[in-house]
Order: sequence, then C-alpha cells, then structure tokens
Amino acid sequence: MQIVRLSHDGAPKYAVVEESRYMFFADDPMFGSLELNGQFAQAGDARLLAPMIPRSQAVGFSGVFDVASPRDLGVFLKPNTAVAGPDSPIVPPGGASEVNLVPQLAAVVSKACKDVSPKVAKQMVWGYTLALSASVDAAGAVRADAFDGSLVLGPVLDTELDPGSVEIAMKVAGEERAAFSMAEARVTPAETIAEASRLFTLLPGDIVLLGAPDLRVGVETQKIVQVVESRLGELVAPVLAG
Amino acid sequence: MQIVRLSHDGAPKYAVVEESRYMFFADDPMFGSLELNGQFAQAGDARLLAPMIPRSQAVGFSGVFDVASPRDLGVFLKPNTAVAGPDSPIVPPGGASEVNLVPQLAAVVSKACKDVSPKVAKQMVWGYTLALSASVDAAGAVRADAFDGSLVLGPVLDTELDPGSVEIAMKVAGEERAAFSMAEARVTPAETIAEASRLFTLLPGDIVLLGAPDLRVGVETQKIVQVVESRLGELVAPVLAG
Repeated sequence: MQIVRLSHDGAPKYAVVEESRYMFFADDPMFGSLELNGQFAQAGDARLLAPMIPRSQAVGFSGVFDVASPRDLGVFLKPNTAVAGPDSPIVPPGGASEVNLVPQLAAVVSKACKDVSPKVAKQMVWGYTLALSASVDAAGAVRADAFDGSLVLGPVLDTELDPGSVEIAMKVAGEERAAFSMAEARVTPAETIAEASRLFTLLPGDIVLLGAPDLRVGVETQKIVQVVESRLGELVAPVLAG
Repeated sequence: MQIVRLSHDGAPKYAVVEESRYMFFADDPMFGSLELNGQFAQAGDARLLAPMIPRSQAVGFSGVFDVASPRDLGVFLKPNTAVAGPDSPIVPPGGASEVNLVPQLAAVVSKACKDVSPKVAKQMVWGYTLALSASVDAAGAVRADAFDGSLVLGPVLDTELDPGSVEIAMKVAGEERAAFSMAEARVTPAETIAEASRLFTLLPGDIVLLGAPDLRVGVETQKIVQVVESRLGELVAPVLAG
C-alpha cells in the first residue's frame, strides 16, 4: 500500500494512492483502521505533506556503507521542526550559499520500542519514504543539521517496500549527482533501526534515516533537486537563498 | 505562581502550588485559562512529573559562562524521550559506571517562535524549572547525551522567576559538588533562548537549558543527587546501575 498525507479542506489527512486518486482514510491509518471514508482527491489537485511529522525527532546515521558494526555509526538528530514535505524549499541558514545534500531512505516507526533486535525492528516500521537531508558547514552538528526545513520527506509512504535493495539517485538541475543501492550498505536498514532503538526509545511516528554512502554533494541556491527511486517515485525540493 | 505537573487518577494534570496543596487547573494552563477545578492533592501524597514533556526537544548549550557571543555556544539536543521527572533514576547506558552531571536552569517556552530577539525571547517563556542534565563518555553527542532519562526536570515551574541571578548548587550524597550563580553567565538566559530560536523554530513546551560553568562532575552509580535553588526548591534523582 502507498500512503500520502495531504492538506485537504484546511486539515492534514491521510489517503491511500489508487491510480490517480488519493482515497481518504476515515481515521489515522498508523494506529490501525484502514477504513476509507469514501472521499477522495485527484492526485494532480492535492498538495502533499511530509508523510509523517515525528512526535519526537528524526535520527540519522553516517557510515552505514562504511563501518561493520552499528555501534560505530555516527549519529545525528533532526528535530521535528526540520521536517518538510515535497516541494518545500531548502533554505540554507545564516546566508550560506550552498547546502550539502544526502538522499536516502527513511523508515517511519509506528510502535514505541526500545532495545529491539534487527528482526523486531523491521516489524516496528510502518513504511518507508524518500528523504533529502540537508546540512550546512557550521560549528557542531546541531548548528549544521537541525535547521528548519532541512529534512524533506515524501512523496509517498510505502508499507510493503523491501528496503534492502532499493536504488536511489539524486539529480541536481536535471543532472545525476549521486546514485547508490542499499544492497551495498554494510549496516542493514534493520540493524540501523535497531541501533536507533538502543540509543533511546522510539515513539510512533519517529523517523530513522537509513543512510547513504559518504556523499558530499554541495548544491548552490536556485537549483532544483530530485531524489528518485523506482517504486517510491520522485521527491523534489528547490534550494533557495535565505 | 508555582506550577507542578503530577500523576493523579492515572492521568497527568497541572496544579498550582498553594502552601501544602496542589490545586488542579481545569484546563492546560500553558494555553491560557488559569481557572481551577476545585480539586486538589496534598503535596505529600502526589508523585510529581517533569513540568513539561517537550513537543519537540530540549536544546542545551555549553559555554554560557565562557564565550562572549551566543553564536559561539556549543549546542546539543535532548529528545523528549530523555525527559524525566523528579526522583526518576538516571541510568548510564551501555554498562557505564559513571555519568557526568550538569545542574542548570531550564526555560519552558510557551509560544512558537523563530529568530526572536533576547527581549522577545523572554516573553516566550512560560516559566523556569531546575534541570539535571546527564551524559556519558561516548563517541558523538547523540550517543553521549540523548539516552532515556538523561534530563531530569522539576520539581516546580515558576512563572515569575528572574533567571538572571539565581544561585544553583548540586549535592552528591549530601556533599556539595558544584555551585554557581547565573549572574556570572556571559551569555544571558534571554540571549540563550534567542539563540535557540535562531537555530530552529521553538514550539510550545520546548525546553531551553540555560547552561552552567564548565563543570565535569562524574557521579558513580548508587549516589543520590540534589539540585538546589532557594525559590525552585530541590530536584532529586538517584544514579542507578544499568
């Protein structure tokens, strides 16, 4: 199932994607009922939101393609105020003219968990979506990573995706600037989520970023960025000047 | 006014402290109405909770007593899962036998704000409470700082405190191990909160830790820690083994 969150009649709502329509759920589908309410929006008419705003935060990892043990991964936090939806502009703070962008897969956790094994971690995931994580050069991770709008998520949440072999590409102004397969990750998505749960309790709606090779793609303002995956589609965000 | 949050009839509730009684508010007092509902608990009978669980996170700063400019402060994040109330045990993760503890003042923000001046920042604060911030020696700030229960807050939220001159002491097993006056801070509380709002949007309920001198008080397990301030009272937490 592919799920979107969109703004409709002035409120955020969840819908399931059926061909070119977004069919609205009657309730919050993360907490169980997948009943539809009979209403729908045409895909072309709707403005999509980030599939999830975490209750707590998004946690990201560096080194997923490099280190052998999850314990050796670098870790960073993105506050929920960093999360933005498709087409949201990335605005480097402090007058910076460039951001570093990392395309990756994001897991949305749907059950509270702590210290779970990789096998259980997989079962805690509601679905996967695309993420574009931005940072700037600054003293310290929070100044570099945590700014508003620095984590663009979407467009769809896929509840059946197998994250282990997806191939992700990033284009800047139409030109491919990064491409990788999760099959080459040394720390698997399940191990990464388990490691997140070892560091602190994960709450429903929390987001675990599953990492990328050590890319450092500096992107100047006024460029359009696309993150592309065959099943999840295309996440687009412009980089604008502050 | 001094406000507490406590567990009563199985639900968290806010109350105002009146002598030895906690008089319950009819609604959430952060969002306006300070009407009481006529019910109360005797202070001795109630288990206090952290005065606030942030919607987003707590943000902390290092260097408040050392650097001249807020831009030079170190910054760290504590997820809302790190927040615990009075008497909650601090349990160093990973089998560590010691935690580093920093007593400090915490501001609870009650209005969403971004990029505010120090003068406006002051007006965004609902009140102040005591904080005991714990960290362990680990690779990277998130592994060191973000563990569950690593930010003990309470016991009361004071809506009239002037943070600029409070004197805070920390005792370990009854012996004073740290003491400082906020009057000696080079970056004022208002400047610190303004700096937090420069880094990202602050949401109602977010917590800004106002810093301490460069203390490094290692505390072994099985010790009782007290943070003391004349007006805010005493925040107590035991350090336990994992």
